Order: sequence, then C-alpha cells, then structure tokens
Amino acid sequence: MMSVTKLPDIMIEPAVRAALLEDLGRAGDVTSEGVIPPDAQAALVLNAREEGVLAGLDFARIAFHLIDPEISFQPVLQDGAALAPGAEIARISGNARALLSGERVALNFLGHLSGIASATNGIARAIDHTKARISCTRKTTPGLRFAEKYAVRAGGGANHRFGLDDAILIKDNHIAIAGGVEPAMQAAKAYAGHLVKIEIEVDNLAQLEEALRFGPDAILLDNMGPDVLREAVAMIAGRAVAEASGRINAQTAPAIAEAGVDLISAGWLTHSARVLDIGLDFAA
Amino acid sequence: MMSVTKLPDIMIEPAVRAALLEDLGRAGDVTSEGVIPPDAQAALVLNAREEGVLAGLDFARIAFHLIDPEISFQPVLQDGAALAPGAEIARISGNARALLSGERVALNFLGHLSGIASATNGIARAIDHTKARISCTRKTTPGLRFAEKYAVRAGGGANHRFGLDDAILIKDNHIAIAGGVEPAMQAAKAYAGHLVKIEIEVDNLAQLEEALRFGPDAILLDNMGPDVLREAVAMIAGRAVAEASGRINAQTAPAIAEAGVDLISAGWLTHSARVLDIGLDFAA
Amino acid sequence: MMSVTKLPDIMIEPAVRAALLEDLGRAGDVTSEGVIPPDAQAALVLNAREEGVLAGLDFARIAFHLIDPEISFQPVLQDGAALAPGAEIARISGNARALLSGERVALNFLGHLSGIASATNGIARAIDHTKARISCTRKTTPGLRFAEKYAVRAGGGANHRFGLDDAILIKDNHIAIAGGVEPAMQAAKAYAGHLVKIEIEVDNLAQLEEALRFGPDAILLDNMGPDVLREAVAMIAGRAVAEASGRINAQTAPAIAEAGVDLISAGWLTHSARVLDIGLDFAA
Amino acid sequence: MMSVTKLPDIMIEPAVRAALLEDLGRAGDVTSEGVIPPDAQAALVLNAREEGVLAGLDFARIAFHLIDPEISFQPVLQDGAALAPGAEIARISGNARALLSGERVALNFLGHLSGIASATNGIARAIDHTKARISCTRKTTPGLRFAEKYAVRAGGGANHRFGLDDAILIKDNHIAIAGGVEPAMQAAKAYAGHLVKIEIEVDNLAQLEEALRFGPDAILLDNMGPDVLREAVAMIAGRAVAEASGRINAQTAPAIAEAGVDLISAGWLTHSARVLDIGLDFAA
Amino acid sequence: MMSVTKLPDIMIEPAVRAALLEDLGRAGDVTSEGVIPPDAQAALVLNAREEGVLAGLDFARIAFHLIDPEISFQPVLQDGAALAPGAEIARISGNARALLSGERVALNFLGHLSGIASATNGIARAIDHTKARISCTRKTTPGLRFAEKYAVRAGGGANHRFGLDDAILIKDNHIAIAGGVEPAMQAAKAYAGHLVKIEIEVDNLAQLEEALRFGPDAILLDNMGPDVLREAVAMIAGRAVAEASGRINAQTAPAIAEAGVDLISAGWLTHSARVLDIGLDFAA
Amino acid sequence: MMSVTKLPDIMIEPAVRAALLEDLGRAGDVTSEGVIPPDAQAALVLNAREEGVLAGLDFARIAFHLIDPEISFQPVLQDGAALAPGAEIARISGNARALLSGERVALNFLGHLSGIASATNGIARAIDHTKARISCTRKTTPGLRFAEKYAVRAGGGANHRFGLDDAILIKDNHIAIAGGVEPAMQAAKAYAGHLVKIEIEVDNLAQLEEALRFGPDAILLDNMGPDVLREAVAMIAGRAVAEASGRINAQTAPAIAEAGVDLISAGWLTHSARVLDIGLDFAA
Repeated sequence: MMSVTKLPDIMIEPAVRAALLEDLGRAGDVTSEGVIPPDAQAALVLNAREEGVLAGLDFARIAFHLIDPEISFQPVLQDGAALAPGAEIARISGNARALLSGERVALNFLGHLSGIASATNGIARAIDHTKARISCTRKTTPGLRFAEKYAVRAGGGANHRFGLDDAILIKDNHIAIAGGVEPAMQAAKAYAGHLVKIEIEVDNLAQLEEALRFGPDAILLDNMGPDVLREAVAMIAGRAVAEASGRINAQTAPAIAEAGVDLISAGWLTHSARVLDIGLDFAA
Repeated sequence: MMSVTKLPDIMIEPAVRAALLEDLGRAGDVTSEGVIPPDAQAALVLNAREEGVLAGLDFARIAFHLIDPEISFQPVLQDGAALAPGAEIARISGNARALLSGERVALNFLGHLSGIASATNGIARAIDHTKARISCTRKTTPGLRFAEKYAVRAGGGANHRFGLDDAILIKDNHIAIAGGVEPAMQAAKAYAGHLVKIEIEVDNLAQLEEALRFGPDAILLDNMGPDVLREAVAMIAGRAVAEASGRINAQTAPAIAEAGVDLISAGWLTHSARVLDIGLDFAA
Repeated sequence: MMSVTKLPDIMIEPAVRAALLEDLGRAGDVTSEGVIPPDAQAALVLNAREEGVLAGLDFARIAFHLIDPEISFQPVLQDGAALAPGAEIARISGNARALLSGERVALNFLGHLSGIASATNGIARAIDHTKARISCTRKTTPGLRFAEKYAVRAGGGANHRFGLDDAILIKDNHIAIAGGVEPAMQAAKAYAGHLVKIEIEVDNLAQLEEALRFGPDAILLDNMGPDVLREAVAMIAGRAVAEASGRINAQTAPAIAEAGVDLISAGWLTHSARVLDIGLDFAA
Repeated sequence: MMSVTKLPDIMIEPAVRAALLEDLGRAGDVTSEGVIPPDAQAALVLNAREEGVLAGLDFARIAFHLIDPEISFQPVLQDGAALAPGAEIARISGNARALLSGERVALNFLGHLSGIASATNGIARAIDHTKARISCTRKTTPGLRFAEKYAVRAGGGANHRFGLDDAILIKDNHIAIAGGVEPAMQAAKAYAGHLVKIEIEVDNLAQLEEALRFGPDAILLDNMGPDVLREAVAMIAGRAVAEASGRINAQTAPAIAEAGVDLISAGWLTHSARVLDIGLDFAA
Repeated sequence: MMSVTKLPDIMIEPAVRAALLEDLGRAGDVTSEGVIPPDAQAALVLNAREEGVLAGLDFARIAFHLIDPEISFQPVLQDGAALAPGAEIARISGNARALLSGERVALNFLGHLSGIASATNGIARAIDHTKARISCTRKTTPGLRFAEKYAVRAGGGANHRFGLDDAILIKDNHIAIAGGVEPAMQAAKAYAGHLVKIEIEVDNLAQLEEALRFGPDAILLDNMGPDVLREAVAMIAGRAVAEASGRINAQTAPAIAEAGVDLISAGWLTHSARVLDIGLDFAA
Repeated sequence: MMSVTKLPDIMIEPAVRAALLEDLGRAGDVTSEGVIPPDAQAALVLNAREEGVLAGLDFARIAFHLIDPEISFQPVLQDGAALAPGAEIARISGNARALLSGERVALNFLGHLSGIASATNGIARAIDHTKARISCTRKTTPGLRFAEKYAVRAGGGANHRFGLDDAILIKDNHIAIAGGVEPAMQAAKAYAGHLVKIEIEVDNLAQLEEALRFGPDAILLDNMGPDVLREAVAMIAGRAVAEASGRINAQTAPAIAEAGVDLISAGWLTHSARVLDIGLDFAA
C-alpha cells in the first residue's frame, strides 16, 4: 500500500461544494424528494468494482458531510490502498435522501481520482525495478489540478510543475523564439529565483550537449527511444535530473526506465486516465 | 459536419478565468518572462494531430483573450467539425509571451472537450443507421458539467439530465428504499411538476411491465442484451422513450441500437474519454 | 398544514451569508456594540403578526447561527404551517448582541418567503375544489429564484421552469421570429432532449389547434376568459397539460380553474407578493 | 422628472451577472436555441404598460450586453423619468436569440426597481406640499439592498441606513436590554465615531423628552397619529430630525407629513412594492 | 488595557480563508509534509517579542481552526491588551504539521493588526491628557479595511469613514471642481441623507469661516500648526467636530491635541505602521 | 531604471475590483455625487512627492478603468522607474466624479507597492557592489502576496518562496520536531519533487556542517554577524546558495553582503515598508 499525505480539508472543500451546487441546481434532488420518505435511513458500502488504487476518499467524505453533517462515514481503507475487485472502501449510513443526493458527486470525485491513481500505479509498478519514477504534467483538467496531482501521488507517482509559476521549463517553442538553447538558458539562469529550478526540453543529443553547458537542474528528453535515452543519460552523467517523455505506457515504460532516466512523465495520467469503477451498494 | 449551438461567452468565461489563474499561480509564467523577449511576436496554428471532432474553440479563444485582448484569434473550423489529422483549426497570432502563457489552458480545454466530442461521435456514427441517439449521463468531471454536456452535443450526441433537479430518474436504490416500482412511480407522479419528466430504471421485463402501468416518460433499460432489449422495446410500444445503458462502445452499440431503443447512454463519454491530441505549432 | 420538502442547508447558506455581510458592512452592528452589554442574554419569540403560511424558517435559523453558533433556535412550527395572528413560530435565545445583529436578515428572508407562500396559498385554497394547481413563473427576484420557488411549494403551489435551460417554453415572440407555430414546434421537437418537456403559448383557439398537431407536453393559454378556456380544455382533451395565465387573483382564479385547466400560473406570486408580517419579540 | 445619480457599472454588474447565470443554468436558453434561427435579428422596444417611475435601466443594458456585447441598446428615457402607459423607454436590437435570452433578467430588474421607484414616488407626490421626505428602511430583499435603495432615490425618496454599520439606530429592543433611554443614549454617544449619527426610536412623548436630553441626531417617532406627531415635532423644535414611521401609505402620509416631521419611513417600499409592468415588444 | 468589541467571526473568516489558500497554493505545505511525522504533536506559545498592543487574536484562532478544527487555541490575553516583551498571548497545541502550516498566516495577521494597534496606541497615549482622539483614514491596505479599522479601535483610536459611501467628506479637489466652499457645502447639504454627516476640509481660516456658515458636522483642518489650530478651534466654538491632520506622530501630536481639536487623523496608522514582532515558540 | 516584467491584467483585476467595491460600499461615492456636477471633466497628474521607485502603475490604471472605461490614462514612467520628488508619473483625465471615486484605491495600491519597491531598492543599491541580492519572504500582507512580490521585483529585489507549496524551507521548528538536521534533510530529499528546491535554516556552523552533508540547494544563515557569515560562505564553497537573514537594513546590509552571501532576505520589505507618497494633482 502506498502512503500519501492527505490534503487539508480547506483545500478540498471549495471544489466539492461547487460540485454539489452544480448537481443540486435550483431545485435540489427532485427524485429523492419525490420518491424517498423523509425519514428513511440507509446503510451503504463503497465498493471497488475493479482492481486499482484508491484516491479521493476525503472528497467523498466531505461531499456527504456538506449535504448532511450527521451522515456517518467510516473509512475502511485509505487513499493509496490497493483495491481488489469487491474491496470494501468505506461504510456510510444515515438519512437515505441525503445519501442518494450526495452519491453522484462523491463517486464522480472518487472514480476520477482513483482512476488517475490507478493509471499512475500501473506505470509505477512496471518500473519498480528501476530508479525511475512516473510523473504527471500540467495537462490536467481545468480547475482540478491540485486534486489530480494529489491522485498521482496517491498512485505512487511524482509531481511535475503545479503551474507556470513554480519552475522554469524551457520547451521547443521557447527555444525557437529565444533564438536557441544558449540564449534561452542564459536568460533563464539570469531570471530564475534561488528556489526556482530550471528544466529544458531537448529533441536530440546535440541540443542536449549545448544545454548541459549551462547547468540546468533537469533535462526533458522528448520522444527518444531507449538507445538514445541511454546515450543521453550517459552524457548527463548525474549532473541533472533526466526526464523522458513521449508515448509512455505500461508496455513502453520499462525499457525507457531501464535506460537510466530518473523520471518518466506522461500527460495522459491526468487527462485521459479512465475512471475507476467504484460503486455504492446497500450494506449486506 | 455537426452543427452545434454555441454557449454564450458568459457561461464559458468563469471556468476559463479560473483555469488561467490556477496555472498562473502567484508569480505568473516565469518561463516566458525569463526567456522570451517582451515584444517578440509569434504566429501559431492550432492543428489536429489525430482524427476526431472539434469542441471547445470558444474556450480556447477566451483563454487567449483573457491573457491578452489584442491577440488575433481566427477560427478556420467550428465546433462540431470533423477533424482529419493535420487539419488546421485556427490561426492565432500576437505577443509571444502571451501566446505561450495561454497555450496550456487553451489546449487543456480543447483537448478535453474535443476528446468527449470525438468519443460521442464515434458511437453516433456507429448507430447512424438506426433511430437511436447516444447520450451522456451525470457522470461528469466536477465543475465542468455544462462544458462536457456541450461537447457531447458537439459530437452529435444527446444530453441526459443536467443535474439532480431537472428531471426525475428513479434508480434501483430509489426503488428499493421506496418499497418497489409501484410506490416509487406513484410518489414521483404526485410530486413532479408539469414540466418535469419521469424516467425509471428497470432491470428486467417484470419490472418493466410494472413500470409501464404508471406512464413514465422514459425507461432506462439497464444492462440488457439485444434480445431482451428488443422484447422490451416491443412491450414499451412507443409509450415511453426507451433508453439502454451498460457496456456501451462502438462495437456493442449497433446491436443495441438495432434493437429499437431511442437512446443509448454511456457515462464514459464524459468521465473516461481520452483527450484528443491538438497542438499549437508555429505557422508555416 | 402543507408539507414541504426542506432545501438542504448547502443551498441556503450562501444567500444568507451574503445577506449578513451586506448588512454588517465594514464595521459590523455599531448599535448593538455601542448600546448592548457584551454578555447580555435575551430570549425572543418569532411571532406571526397576521394570518398566512410560513416559509423560510431554515433561512432564519442559518442567519442566527452564522452570526453566533451558540444561539438556541427552537422551531415551534414548520414551513408550510398555517399561521394565525400571534402564532408562535420559534423560540430563539442567546447573546443579545448576536440576536439583534441577525434579526433583520432573518426577518427579511422570513417575511419575503412567507409572503410568497401566503399569496400562493390564497390562490391554492380558492381553487381547492378543482383539479387545478397554482404555479409561479420565472418572474422572480434576481438571485433568489431557488428560494422563491421553494416558498411557492411551501404555500401549496407548483413550480414552473427554474430557468431557461430545464424546459422549452415557446412564447409569442419565439413563434413570431420562427415564422409560426408549426416551424417553432417542429424545431423544438427536433431539438429537445428526451427529458425536456415542450410547452407552447397560444393566444387563440386557432393557434391551439395548430399547436396540438405537434404533440406539445403543455399548452399555455394566455389571457383567455373562462368560456374560451373551457373550449380550449375540450380541444386539448387531456393530450397536454392545460395552463392558464393572465390576471390571476383569488377572485378570478376559481372561474378559471373551474374551466378545467390543470395549472394556473401567476408571476406576481414571486415578484409582487407583499411581505408577511412576522416579528421578533421578547419571550413572555 | 426626477434626477438621480447613476450607480457605477462596477456596482451593478455582479448582480446582473449572477442573475443571468441563475437563469441560463447549465444548458443555456434551450428554447431560443431550439426555435430561433442563429442569425435572426430583432428590433425591440421597452415599453411601460402602466404609469410609474423608471428605475433600473442600466441593469437592463448590462444584462443585454453581458449576453451579447453587440446588442444595440438606445435609451429613450432615463431613470427617474415619469412613465405614462405606452411610453417608450429604450430601443434594443440585435441577434434575436441573445435578445430573448436576456429579456427576462432585464425585465425582472427593471420591473422590480421601477416598482419601488413608483411606490416611492406615489408617496413623494402625496407629501410634496410639505417639507417631509419619504424614506426606505433596511427591510430590503437580501442581496439587492444597494439596488433597491437606488430605486428609492430614483423615485424621489431618501435613504435610511444602508446597513448595521453606517449609523446608530437605537430601537425598542436595544432600549429594553440597555435598561432605558438614558443608558442607551449615553452608551451610544460614547461609542459613536465622529461621522456616525445617532437616531433613537421612541414610542411616546415621555420617552421623547428623555431622549432629547442626550442630543440625538434624529428621532424615530413610531406609530404615532398626526396629533401626537405634531406635539412631538414641537418638543423636538428642530434639534433633531423628526422621522415618523408606521402604517404609511398615500392616504395616511399627507396628514403625517403635515404634522411637521422631516422624514417618513416605510419598509414596504422595498419589501412589498409590486412590480411595475414593463414589456419588451417588437419595434413597430 | 483597552477594551474593544470583537468582530463577528463571519466577517473575519473570508479574509483568513483566502490567506490560507494563498499560502497553501496547489500543493499544500510541502515542508511539513516532507519533514514532520504525520502524528507528531506540538505545544506552542504565542509570545510578544516587543512592547505594543494586541490586535487580531481571532484572526489567528480562525487560521489555525480552518487548517485543523482540533487544534486547541487558548487565549491568555485579549485584543487591546498592552504587551510587554515576552508576554504570553495564547497557548496553542495539536498536530504539529497543522500548527506549522497555519503559523505564517496567523502571524501575518497578528503582526500586521497589532502593529496598527500599537502605532495607534502610541499616539493615543501621547494625547491622553487632552480630549482629542486619534483616528485612521481611508488610506488602508486594499481588501483589509474592516480589519485595519478594527485594529485602530483595539489600539484605542477612533475610525473615520469606512468608505466613500458612509459620510460626505469634501476635500480640496471637490471644492475646486464645485467652484468653492459655498457651492460645495450647499450641494452636499441638499444631497445628504438624514443619517449622513458632512465634513469639509479647509486649508486656512478664511475657508473655515466660509464653511462654518453652512453648518458642517465636522471640519478637517489640514496641515495647520498648533497656533492656527487654536484659532480655528476658537472659531468653530463647538459647532462642529474639529479634526486636525498632517504630519502627525507621537512627537507632534501633543501640541496639536492641546490646541483643542477633537480628533487627529493620520493615514500612516494603517498604511505604514510597521508589524509588531510576535513569535510562535515551543511551550516551555 | 529597473526593468520589471509586468503582471498580466487578469492577475491584477480581481484585487483592484475587490478594493473598489470595498470603498464604494452600498451607496457609492456620495461626496462626488453630491458635490461634483455630473459632466464635469478634470485633468490630473500622478506625481511623486518623494524619492523612490515606482511600482503598481497597472493597478492604478485598472482602478480608473473599472470605474469608467473612458478615462484616459497616459503613463509617463513605468514600474521600476526611479522617482525624484515631483516626478510626473502619469496623466489622467476624464469625468471628474469618476476620477475622484477611483483616486483613493489607485493611490492605496500605488503607494503601498511603490513603498515596497523603494524599500527594496534602498537595500539593492546599498549592496550593488557585491554579488548579493536582496529578497523578500512570505511575511506579506494577506491577500496581496502576488502584488507585493511583484513590487519587490520592481525595486530590483529577488523573490523567495511564493507559498508553502513551491519549495521546501526547513526551519528551526521543523528541525526540532523532526529530531535534527539529518532526519529532516533525509526526509526532505526523499519527499521533494524533481523541480522542488530544498533550503534549510541553520543557526550555527555546526548545524551548517551537518546540513551540507545532505546537499541542500540553499542554506538560510539566520542572525549571523559578518565574520561568522564569511566563515559560513567559505564552508559552503559554492555548493549551495548562501542566504543571510536577520536585522537587515541599509546600514547593516553592505557588511553582510560583503561577507560573500548570495542572498539577503528581509521580511520588513513587504510587511513594514512605509507607503511612498504619491499624489494626484490637477494638471497645470
């Protein structure tokens, strides 16, 4: 089981509150109001319906408690836990209308974040025999970056930049407009604060050689095959973090990791991982 | 090419503004500031990198204009357009720093929404020879429901409920707590406003028969194979919209549609469609 | 006594919080601070000062608790209750400054919403011998639609559309621009989702006849007298909900309802109902 | 015609934006989208349907421009103008869908604020032969106080406190808890800032006499008849603003004003004035 | 020790919540998460590191409780208390990560507001032998006016206007554009509501004489020396509040106060007071 | 003259909008409305009243344009410019009411940010003959961190962390709870992402020696005199950024900088710099 540091509730609550109000609209849950007796109680169980890694349990807890603070929410597992099909994740009970009103928002967060954690974990396990770690990118769903980056951590992955502002990442377009690797690196060095790292993307070994002359903290080796990567890692020789990107999946990752890079990054972890199927069933 | 009604900018702007501020953080785009000369200009092209259907162009336009109102944004295609690999989507030019600062947010919206439109369209085309339409569900990404539902429309799909409040959808849990199909339908009928439709989920033909006695507007036929669906459609006999759900994809959809249902719904269109690869390149 | 389903607190709280901050301004309640000893306690009673129907009690409770969570708020009646002059509604006690600081916001919500519930109920009782129900419209106070629609329900009324997005209502202007009832209805039919009902406004029986050919879910019979309404109801013959509007009050409503319509709608219930007089007095 | 100072747009826009988003919901204006051709144009006229005083024209303008900045909005009259039935208020033209999407929000503001202005003006004209002015109170619709107070000004009325924080108003409950008029006035005098006025409510002439000993800026004479008011005004003798309240309407106001008070205040102007009927019609 | 009326938590919480989210960013407190064991507990003491006056304790309490409601926060002193170097202000204990995550925001508020209270108190004590009070202005830090004005009160000072809207203050620019003291005062008198006071700035005794003819509630005597002020006070003769401003500090204030003015105002109390040094140390 | 990269307007506008609404309150600028003719025009000049460095001009521009988009705002200088007393900063003209309504908010931002830039620049010039740079901290005014950090840059300073989330800074309390420098550094190394730098605070040379064994990116040398700093710099020998803090001002900074450190940080730049006096005068 992974261990992941929880987010403080104050960071989670605004997103969950917004999602509930988006779902309740202007009239509330007309189905539950119309069909469920007001005092009916229910005891439910959050169950994994497939294998994966759990992330987002606090989002689910907060969803139910924002609908009704008297709902009992008892976690059985914690974020980062490996899920087997049928695994019991939490026991939730209380007013039936409230439970059904909060269900969809809770599951939308839980499925989305566990999907990302599971996808991340699939790569993490595939490269477990190497020193490389799997990382996400800034290709996240608008508004949910803090949550999706958290899910990557829950899945055993590392985080790349959180925004345009917390590190310098010089990409091909920057290099082109700046007039080459040298002017770009020199400008970046002169501009960066003392706690701001500099990474530069290179497309080939010539660019890599030029970049290394300016002491970047990390190098993004874009779309290189294992052999070229191995050569690049040798050239870097530990002077910078070596990051590989491009066409990463559980099949391709091991060879890339074995080439000796420190980090493999993949945008799809956050933008294209499919939801993990988690359901809410009546307690037996 | 699909034709889709645009969302008014006032609905789009808050989500794009929030995404930009999420990305700019507290320091702004330190890479562009550090590396790109302040007055450098650039001319870029939005290009499809794979086949699909376009959605989200207004989100991209608003992203660039919120960063810099003087950026020129010239659409070549419109949302709903079929994209061939390499298709030029829009021409964008102006201050280079501003363009690079807005790029990721613009692409995050565009890729996400076009991914949903493309997935939807894949099913839509697969069932084009039938009367059935493909529909999304409430399994959307928190905060983006209005946008994802729009993307489904851009892909040629139909929208299901937008929230808990705009229609009654009686599911298995509601039926169980209400004490059966009959009490659930009777309560719903008594409760529903005159512009609120009622749909009920049934798991088998016995439930269907019971449900039909109470005149629902639509029936959700959950997880039934084509043969049972055909029988269900015959029983419904046009008295309600017949909706099929469960394990829908481009392979399974035709047989389900051919069973005569009016609607096929699939949660994965919005929660698990992978991003469509759209890139921003220097204009030739 | 009416029975009305409560709104979840999460829907109520933002409006009450905004109203409190609007009233407290930048300096807070300078009168209570200046005049009332900080530890003074008070026990108050919410009393009806005239006959009517109660709505908004949760808004009042939340107002007091947002000012001071230690205030005791004990409801005696519930929303939907018939109020006789002098009826005790709730007992509220605690810090005197906090009670006086929250009083006006609590009463502003309570008086406004009870005023709407009472107006609604006046019509509801006048047509109680018929099958017709009284309904509100979208003519609501900006920002308070969810609350005003709730008050209508508390008064025994029905809700019409909650917004531009949850049903199609084709009015005279739409018909004119679309080029007539037929093109408008055909376009609407083609456009509407399977859970979206279609209503059309008609001004005379010729339009009604044309509209009925396209199977609308509801017909809005605007400004017709009882005799014409009776004819219209006969033409509709149960194929659509028959809604009458125009110049509705407790005197005119019975004859209109007796004409056989299903629904009578009146904008003034939400935009022009006068406040119900409810006061906060020292407990005896 | 009244002359009223306009509110800056920055104060108006948030309320109008919120009202539009409340109305557009998650799907937008499905009727206009479904029924009106996308490029249809329309030319409309805002018309008064009854006599009154105009208020809220900037709210209407901003509503249309937030929906579509290209709509042409040409005012014919200004806020504060007297309206005769049929009076043309503004000419509005542009995209037909956009016009119909913004219509209801524009009219909801315009009718509500013009209703308040008209009610205020009714009293103002009734007491025009005296020095007294008509004033509103803090009994306003939650969230709209700034707008409703503006409407009172547009109708020729005066504003009372804008919140709990901008003046001290010692009411009966404060006096009771503070232990009498004397301790309340002394505490208030000691507490008030140099730009904060003090008003005290008195129920009888004995209280008035006691209050005057402490030099309040204003006296609220609650629920006194014209004869007692005349006596109270004589006792005040110009040393404080004399304000009368309680059961004010166009019939009772003249006698009260003739008693010599400076100000007459009435909560119903803001909380119970009925909407003024203003319509949007096709331009001839 | 000063006594200051607390602000209700509902006014404080939004500013503290925003400050915490500003500090936590998108990744949270990576130092505490990386370095502190998740279950480590700590007991801390808020200590004054220099002499001054306390303000902002509720802001600190709310900061810690928004991070973790289970933190124990025990005040030893209250806002308005005189602080000796080393004085213990509050005892705070609980989860170590949470304590360290909330520390900076708590201290930023506490130091800023106590700095203002201390600066205010320095002047207040210097003029304690006179009837004059020290007051702040509208020269406050954007977004924190309510808090900074509160800190002035905690330091024993008075508050001037809270905004452009709660009193009329006619300054030199207004006089110039209006065409002189007389037209400005006459216009203001005609415009002001009955609870709105009028103050006018004068630069010399001739202007003062003219202004007094129109009965302002207060006179701002700008940049006059003690002798001229004495003359001005004699001319005012108690008919208006006499306020002096310009170059106020603990050295100059006594002579100005002794000239007989009622109020001395200084913008630097809120915009330039340096932070009071308050630290958070391990409990002994 | 410094050169500083501008913030995008989208980052500035929310703070300025909030400040304007804070100042306008619920009634707007009653002085200008009461005293200034509605169509009066004015031409004003922003002038420096003392020596310093300009920062915040875009905040001022946006303040005026949010009040009235037709105001003409012509900058003469740019942020980062050295200001001599009397220097003309910008020419602003338009509607007089609008100009006076926006003046205070514009000046509050401009004075506050220019004060920070000027304080920063005072240190920057004092250490200009060394390689050291002056830096701010996280001791910023709640809600204005992005703006105050920008002002530091405008004054020629460097930025430290922007929040708890963009770098690891291990302080004395973290070391104490973690059980020493070694466990703290090891935990941090294991936890930090590849773009996250690690800085550690040390109080003496023994701690420094221990810290250096774990390769931190930067060392915070707290409260050391120039001699000890010189020794520390020698020990670090370029392997980490050497940052000095504690009791920094224009007198002490040169000796500290000459000791060879890379960075000097001071909290007072943002929390205690006094406002720079900038005024708005009628154009000659």
